[in-house]
Amino acid sequence: MSASIAVIGSVAFDTIETPAGRADDELGGSAMYFAVAASFFAPVHLVAPVGEDFPPASRAALAARGIDLASLETRPGTTFRWHGRYHEDVNKRDTLHLDLGVFAGFLPALRDTVRAAPYVFLGNIDPALQRAVLEQFTGPLLVGLDTMNHWIDAARPALEAILPRLDLLVINDEEARQLSGAGNVPTAARRILERGVRRVLVKRGEYGAVLFSPGSVFAVPAFPLESVFDPTGAGDTFAGGLMGALAASGDRSDAGLRRAIVYGSVLASFVVEDFGPRRMLGLGRDDIEARYRQFVALTQF
Amino acid sequence: MSASIAVIGSVAFDTIETPAGRADDELGGSAMYFAVAASFFAPVHLVAPVGEDFPPASRAALAARGIDLASLETRPGTTFRWHGRYHEDVNKRDTLHLDLGVFAGFLPALRDTVRAAPYVFLGNIDPALQRAVLEQFTGPLLVGLDTMNHWIDAARPALEAILPRLDLLVINDEEARQLSGAGNVPTAARRILERGVRRVLVKRGEYGAVLFSPGSVFAVPAFPLESVFDPTGAGDTFAGGLMGALAASGDRSDAGLRRAIVYGSVLASFVVEDFGPRRMLGLGRDDIEARYRQFVALTQF
Repeated sequence: MSASIAVIGSVAFDTIETPAGRADDELGGSAMYFAVAASFFAPVHLVAPVGEDFPPASRAALAARGIDLASLETRPGTTFRWHGRYHEDVNKRDTLHLDLGVFAGFLPALRDTVRAAPYVFLGNIDPALQRAVLEQFTGPLLVGLDTMNHWIDAARPALEAILPRLDLLVINDEEARQLSGAGNVPTAARRILERGVRRVLVKRGEYGAVLFSPGSVFAVPAFPLESVFDPTGAGDTFAGGLMGALAASGDRSDAGLRRAIVYGSVLASFVVEDFGPRRMLGLGRDDIEARYRQFVALTQF
Repeated sequence: MSASIAVIGSVAFDTIETPAGRADDELGGSAMYFAVAASFFAPVHLVAPVGEDFPPASRAALAARGIDLASLETRPGTTFRWHGRYHEDVNKRDTLHLDLGVFAGFLPALRDTVRAAPYVFLGNIDPALQRAVLEQFTGPLLVGLDTMNHWIDAARPALEAILPRLDLLVINDEEARQLSGAGNVPTAARRILERGVRRVLVKRGEYGAVLFSPGSVFAVPAFPLESVFDPTGAGDTFAGGLMGALAASGDRSDAGLRRAIVYGSVLASFVVEDFGPRRMLGLGRDDIEARYRQFVALTQF
């Protein structure tokens, strides 16, 4: 039995416009993408609020992946909603509408089962909330955290206070520069490591990801796709696949982490092939292993 | 004895301004960078014009690398000169001054030794000149070509005519998009392969490179460097290291080409560490092998 993972973040409904089309009220949110990706490898506790409008069918889709929904808390009001439009270059997008709904003021009291989870992922939310949640865990083996430019700007002291508690910080190039003040990404990563984060994983979208550890660097390309249909949730899916594979193997060595990062890349390469989590929800473990082998073929020399 | 390589392109003097400083009249030019990089692996014939101002010391620096300079033709006039300034983001640069000098009107008649070279690289020059030179070779085993946005714009028919003759086209993301009309790089590469190019190698600067072959893709990251001092010539150096390693091994299989691409990446990672070719001219074969092993450590999982 794999060790379990607790993830806190958002569960949402997204309206997504891409050059390829539009999807309304698609299941979304950082914790949802993470949880589905991780669920292929390990038991997942999903900690997030939803509104009274959250339908049984969405709950059933997550339950079908074996995700523990006891902490998917129904609160008075409506579920978080986001409406975004991607440019012709799908690396760029505009947010047309955002409604936090029941997410505003959310501060969960974790159940004992969740507090005991050995793997913890703090999705991209207010650092003060990330910290308040982290303090409820009894003794996690590995803590990962995602953040974004908004929090680095608006909540830097709270974010910096939590850095020394992190085994893995997952951010993109631009966030690494912003957090560190360094223009060069390897320099940015070194400075963040100097603040006590054990490892920094820099996401580079279509260019893959780079893991910076003290004394070691690992770079993996993204899977070359002719069509990136909908990039929504790719980063959260990447983190979920990675944490899931880590929890399943229990191998937190550099080699184990590298293999887990490739599994994260595999899941991310699938999720962008259709709107929302549709493609990922239709995967089997054999699809994942087949693409893992394609990553080996893509990178070996 | 390794098979020999013939390269045609420019030999120049560059004035380079980067955020780190300035160098005046630095030895430069696409064929110079290529030839020095390739010279670590195989005999190189350098085909390029220089002016009467080209000093013995520069000639001696190239001769010291064992490069055949019998086709480094001195013509009346001055050597090609370029003056560029890099932005704080060294991926961007402005050309402040460009003087083709003796390069204008250059059309070499190759000696028999050069015409027999089994490995041919057509540096980034007018496609009509690339074609006129290519036709002088008696039976090359492998022909590589570099080009740029200017030629894709201004000389597309001549460039397209030469594509079916190429074993390896070396271009960057933007040039691949421009040449193919496809916004997505894997799609762009597929379309270029459909025109008869055997393999397309897409350079992505700080993100590495991707080789597209029919039925196979290989991606290698760039070496993570805290300081990119001067990116001038990195692409030409990459191509030179790659062609040199290919000529040395004689292994033109997919596996052989992958290893050669890593050697190209190794040379490119060195050349950017100082102005012009200074760092590369100071390398030994052991430096190259040590960084090759670092690329293995960087990518293996």
